[in-house]
Amino acid sequence: MTTALDPDRAVLPEPPRLPDLTGRDAEVVDAWWRAAMYLTVAQIYLQENALLREPLLAAHIKPRLLGHWGTSPGLALVYAHASRLVRETGQRAVYLAGPGHGGPALVAASWLEGTWSETYPDLTRDAAGLRRLVRQFSTPGGIPSHVSVTTPGSIHEGGELGYVLLHAFGAVMDDPGLLAVAVVGDGEAETGPLEGSWKGISFLDPVRDGAVLPVLHLNGAKISGPTVLGRKDPAEVRALLSGHGYEVLEVEGSDLPGMHHRFAAALATAWQRIRDIQQAARTGEWDGTRPRWPMIVLRSPKGWTGPHEVDGVLVEGTFRSHQVPLSRVREDPAHLAMLERWLRSYRPEELFDAAGRPTTTLQDPVGDLRLSAAPAANGGATTRALALRDLRAYAVDVPAPGVVRQESTRRLGRMLRDVYVDNPTSFRLFCPDETTSNRLGDVLDVSDRAFAERVEPEDDHLAHAGRVMEVLSEHSCHGWLEGYTLTGRHGLFATYEAFAMVSASQTVQHMKWLEEAAALPWRAPVPSLNLLLTSTAWRNDHNGFSHQGPGLLQVVLTHRGSVTRIYLPPDANCLLAVAEHCLGSRSYVNLVVIDKQPQLQWLDLDAAAAHCAAGAGTWAWAGHDPGPEEPDVVLACAGDTPTLETVAAAQILRERLPRLRTRVVNVVDLMSLSPDHPHALAETHFRELFTDTVDVVFAFHGFPGAVHQLVHGRPAPGRFHVRGFIEQGTTTTPFDMTVLNRISRFHLVIEAIERARTTPPGAQAVVDWCHERLAEHHAYVREHFEDLPAIRDWSLEG
Amino acid sequence: MTTALDPDRAVLPEPPRLPDLTGRDAEVVDAWWRAAMYLTVAQIYLQENALLREPLLAAHIKPRLLGHWGTSPGLALVYAHASRLVRETGQRAVYLAGPGHGGPALVAASWLEGTWSETYPDLTRDAAGLRRLVRQFSTPGGIPSHVSVTTPGSIHEGGELGYVLLHAFGAVMDDPGLLAVAVVGDGEAETGPLEGSWKGISFLDPVRDGAVLPVLHLNGAKISGPTVLGRKDPAEVRALLSGHGYEVLEVEGSDLPGMHHRFAAALATAWQRIRDIQQAARTGEWDGTRPRWPMIVLRSPKGWTGPHEVDGVLVEGTFRSHQVPLSRVREDPAHLAMLERWLRSYRPEELFDAAGRPTTTLQDPVGDLRLSAAPAANGGATTRALALRDLRAYAVDVPAPGVVRQESTRRLGRMLRDVYVDNPTSFRLFCPDETTSNRLGDVLDVSDRAFAERVEPEDDHLAHAGRVMEVLSEHSCHGWLEGYTLTGRHGLFATYEAFAMVSASQTVQHMKWLEEAAALPWRAPVPSLNLLLTSTAWRNDHNGFSHQGPGLLQVVLTHRGSVTRIYLPPDANCLLAVAEHCLGSRSYVNLVVIDKQPQLQWLDLDAAAAHCAAGAGTWAWAGHDPGPEEPDVVLACAGDTPTLETVAAAQILRERLPRLRTRVVNVVDLMSLSPDHPHALAETHFRELFTDTVDVVFAFHGFPGAVHQLVHGRPAPGRFHVRGFIEQGTTTTPFDMTVLNRISRFHLVIEAIERARTTPPGAQAVVDWCHERLAEHHAYVREHFEDLPAIRDWSLEG
Repeated sequence: MTTALDPDRAVLPEPPRLPDLTGRDAEVVDAWWRAAMYLTVAQIYLQENALLREPLLAAHIKPRLLGHWGTSPGLALVYAHASRLVRETGQRAVYLAGPGHGGPALVAASWLEGTWSETYPDLTRDAAGLRRLVRQFSTPGGIPSHVSVTTPGSIHEGGELGYVLLHAFGAVMDDPGLLAVAVVGDGEAETGPLEGSWKGISFLDPVRDGAVLPVLHLNGAKISGPTVLGRKDPAEVRALLSGHGYEVLEVEGSDLPGMHHRFAAALATAWQRIRDIQQAARTGEWDGTRPRWPMIVLRSPKGWTGPHEVDGVLVEGTFRSHQVPLSRVREDPAHLAMLERWLRSYRPEELFDAAGRPTTTLQDPVGDLRLSAAPAANGGATTRALALRDLRAYAVDVPAPGVVRQESTRRLGRMLRDVYVDNPTSFRLFCPDETTSNRLGDVLDVSDRAFAERVEPEDDHLAHAGRVMEVLSEHSCHGWLEGYTLTGRHGLFATYEAFAMVSASQTVQHMKWLEEAAALPWRAPVPSLNLLLTSTAWRNDHNGFSHQGPGLLQVVLTHRGSVTRIYLPPDANCLLAVAEHCLGSRSYVNLVVIDKQPQLQWLDLDAAAAHCAAGAGTWAWAGHDPGPEEPDVVLACAGDTPTLETVAAAQILRERLPRLRTRVVNVVDLMSLSPDHPHALAETHFRELFTDTVDVVFAFHGFPGAVHQLVHGRPAPGRFHVRGFIEQGTTTTPFDMTVLNRISRFHLVIEAIERARTTPPGAQAVVDWCHERLAEHHAYVREHFEDLPAIRDWSLEG
Repeated sequence: MTTALDPDRAVLPEPPRLPDLTGRDAEVVDAWWRAAMYLTVAQIYLQENALLREPLLAAHIKPRLLGHWGTSPGLALVYAHASRLVRETGQRAVYLAGPGHGGPALVAASWLEGTWSETYPDLTRDAAGLRRLVRQFSTPGGIPSHVSVTTPGSIHEGGELGYVLLHAFGAVMDDPGLLAVAVVGDGEAETGPLEGSWKGISFLDPVRDGAVLPVLHLNGAKISGPTVLGRKDPAEVRALLSGHGYEVLEVEGSDLPGMHHRFAAALATAWQRIRDIQQAARTGEWDGTRPRWPMIVLRSPKGWTGPHEVDGVLVEGTFRSHQVPLSRVREDPAHLAMLERWLRSYRPEELFDAAGRPTTTLQDPVGDLRLSAAPAANGGATTRALALRDLRAYAVDVPAPGVVRQESTRRLGRMLRDVYVDNPTSFRLFCPDETTSNRLGDVLDVSDRAFAERVEPEDDHLAHAGRVMEVLSEHSCHGWLEGYTLTGRHGLFATYEAFAMVSASQTVQHMKWLEEAAALPWRAPVPSLNLLLTSTAWRNDHNGFSHQGPGLLQVVLTHRGSVTRIYLPPDANCLLAVAEHCLGSRSYVNLVVIDKQPQLQWLDLDAAAAHCAAGAGTWAWAGHDPGPEEPDVVLACAGDTPTLETVAAAQILRERLPRLRTRVVNVVDLMSLSPDHPHALAETHFRELFTDTVDVVFAFHGFPGAVHQLVHGRPAPGRFHVRGFIEQGTTTTPFDMTVLNRISRFHLVIEAIERARTTPPGAQAVVDWCHERLAEHHAYVREHFEDLPAIRDWSLEG
């Protein structure tokens, strides 16, 4: 079953066809393209004389030449024609530059369209602004050489390669009127995530979603060599892309204006195909077969229109034009002259008026239709809060701590089911084929899984109109969610804890994007990227050591507090409270870690909400802390399994060593431990929980070092004795995992007694009792499996 | 230019053709296959009555049913036929199971071939051993449910998906006589790294390398839904794989013995094609065009031969057979009866003799030819040490510290050039298109870059026989190197520091593999996985914040000391000493971090070697530590840029505050700081360097928390005041990066004075002087770029 369509958004009015490119049209497009290329070269080389109103001198050249020329002409060509499409048809579009190191081309486009000046008013759309434009490029205090957060119109950083199609598909999900023009570089096309992302159309719904138009730009070379797709037999490239499901339109050459005419024709065909597919699907004239969406293969020389040969060496069309094709322009007058000829070849005198304003103004699309001003690329500005219901509907009834056992994530699944219902176009769940396994399957009651390939009767909740995104690729899930949230919608990526490291670099890059964006007032806050990690290290019963790793927590921990949040809810109600907070938050990466197996429940909803809001708190019912003196030892915990072991340890101590005063502190909001995070516990609060001097035995979900890191700067950090995942794992029981990693209740009791300020009589007996229990456990394991071969030499471990 | 071929290894003797499958052959193969499937089902379900010599009772069933049935029949079918190929032709082969969660099939195969019993003698090849075999599976104290380090014949963990072809291609590089049969699951085929890895043949040399035979096993479903390739129009799948460059051979169905005959025919054709390609290339009858290597698409039902329908629901051929298709066998007599029928359908009475020994013995290949006994899959056993020359040939002449400036990695490049020369079949460098950029280009003097697609005249050091591996995919570089080292050869993966996070999950999984292998005496130590990170966070001049991130160091840090090594050589001679050590080491992940830009050199080769061997040491020439008392403050550093700033800070203090006793300690071997790593400095040595109580101002390459983590457990860890990369970055100068991250010499001087045990007269003046210098720097930045727009609102940062 799937929620109903929003009729206002689904079917677009029939727009005009993209008319054939006339000779005059071609001149206009060519002029715009020349202007973008002129400005590209100017940004790489010039610090003065940006309009070339006087002869070029060495003094006009920047002291250090940095930037990427090679890909820029192609990026600008696609941009010019996409802009014409927008102008002629009113098609709402966003442009993504996969080879985003060609930053100057996109900066030039934005300046030509006026967006740069609107965004950064100091940088006017005239000669003075142009001087600043070229000077700021790839310069300290200026902007990077690649497309970045500072570039208006971009939701795609030109750094780590491979995600451009993922971002494009994420951007058009649930936005049927949007076209994402996504340029894929042929270097980028060698990466795994990019190769894997062509399959986006296998999950795209022509009714509910917009369209992606990939333009594979084969200029043949990367930094110092050719690319695989650039050098393959073109028939193979065609076969490959057809095999991914696309109709392949090809444009090749370097002749002008022929290339303009051919590219315009290909674009017109592509756009018409997209419109035909969408209109058929949206008017019920579609049999449900996955459409053959169009794409364009553009073959143009690397560094096209740049220096053809330098010092007798071929440059145009080769890897040698990747960055700065003329490198000695300050020292070598011949190079300087070549640069001047190169710049003048674009006829800047035609492109800029006396005041330095671009003369192409009237030919550009206007307002929000400008690619550099696309509202979708500043998604925060249009973000609407999710409708969320009262959590009581999903809460677990907890009459007392530790008496009810529940799968916590199942409650989250119920909550997300209603989020789907109440937000039919602005929320999606992304997951590598584990929605049911992660106990979130209730969402399937209201939305099928998305699948655009053939659906068969035996399939379970699968439909082209489905909006639960399952693809066996953490990269795809992460990248789609990034595109979806950067364009102002909400989502959650749920995945196995150990394999969250697959997309860790994407998490890092997204954190960096958000960190940068926080410093740009014009970028409105976007919905947070919510990551839910389940199937944790502690409960991977039949999988082995390779499935046990809390690594992503450590990765997120190291980034700036302006964007990072890490939550370790110990039970279902805390998970609900955390989820509500995360789904309402903006511009964070929220990492939530909790297992999916049945687990003891501790807090009722009110207590959970208060506990999560505080970030950390004393669980008086668990400890034995009669006051008014400080406890003898603090038992702290963060994470579901550590919480269970800590509560059990406290119970053992309460019952067997009642004269020992123990306090149990549970931490949900991990960053609250840090002294300098926005969520930091106030120092007085921290001292109320952990005292100033009492030793803390801290049971932690992840690697112990994380807590050592966090409490540095807190009073007497050396008294925090942390136990956590110490890379001991195998196929074994959950309890044995806690023993192997020395975080079991018995280990905690022993250390608590060792660290306590006083040693009540009977303490040694309790320690002995714990050692007996551990020995019993080991004996049980041995006995139970005594006939199993000793395939491991355990003596070599631990 | 490329080093000469080894004629002894390149050309294989002409082997017999794989004969057609006769009826009798088919019966033998089928019997073996049935035995493997019987044992698979037995492992999933049985704890007793493993040979079904008595009627099946609920008591014979394991208490908890875990394991993956769905993919196992296909894995076993391919294994059976690959074994026949080996038996008939003597082809040396290794088998990689991409859908490695089908572990029981591979365990069964190994036991049938006798290898399991040879490896684990307690587990005999008879009824007693069989009982243990089924009981150990997916059981605490036993083995994981997936193919893992414990599985003889495997170099590929069945956990994180996507790397099977990478491992296969890495395995056959420089081993012309080896065939890697690599089964690709259709779930796995949805991952980015797998999609990206088909291009392995674009880098494979038919002369020097062996062959990979991919078998794409399309059973159509993953955990809870269909797969993209499983549901695509078969013509599209064919187009896709043809587009990647393969000759696609297809086998489809579930009829028997038809499937045996068809698969045998496809395998015979594939093998003949491979032989033809290799023989042509190795006898000079080849025009250099990239061969169309064969591959097989195998379409067979998921859970083939298992329960077809359960409780009225279709199971065979659907996702419902992914794991345990009959789940209530202990409770439901009807399910139990179905299980018994299922097990008996394989006719176990024909497959095992009275003693429980498999009757298929004579049909198996023998000795090292058995796939489960392939020497290539236990590469440590055949590893030969690399020939390494005296480092003096590459060393920088350092007459005094800090007077010579060099690109340190260029010296490493010279060393690696000779490593290529002296080890023509056992060393490769892997790098995403950055060998030259990373200043390692000297290797190209002796080996071209590998490229099997079209080579053109303007290309630079590119040839199908090249052995420098450049592909724009960190995943591919990492995965190939893993395959290369696990089969006993040596290599280095050099990459940009920030983008090393792309393959961080592979680093984690490889560390886990090595950690597990260390506990298995039969797995001989393999060459280490060497990672060189360059273009570090501190020197990313024209790239912005997205290119600045020392994340991988943090990831490696958290893993076990049995495999992790992290080196931060401060200069070229230290880098050489570290590289020599790493290339000679076994079974480690060695992470080496150093920038590629010209940098000051500190130590001559002898001093560098001694310094690196010690791991950390006092640089008396840098500090001002007249003794015999302890210094007032210790200035410690790890990493090239932090070392530069620390030495500069010490110089400022020496000159301007000579009454302050400072000691400079440089750390090369980061793990030496930890109290419990194999490389840990002995406590007395640690105290000699850092004293017991004196405050330490520590300038660190990575995130500061890493050092806090490491020194936990050392004397008074609270006195370590760490400065490092605090996620402040942008397009700016290297020095400004140190200012933004508060690790500049001036910051270090100010903190050293603040932390020192005494405050000599004049200290405040030095602090003031430093603040003036910082103010001057800020003014310079402002002035120099005063006409640049204020595109950032810096007030929101820091």
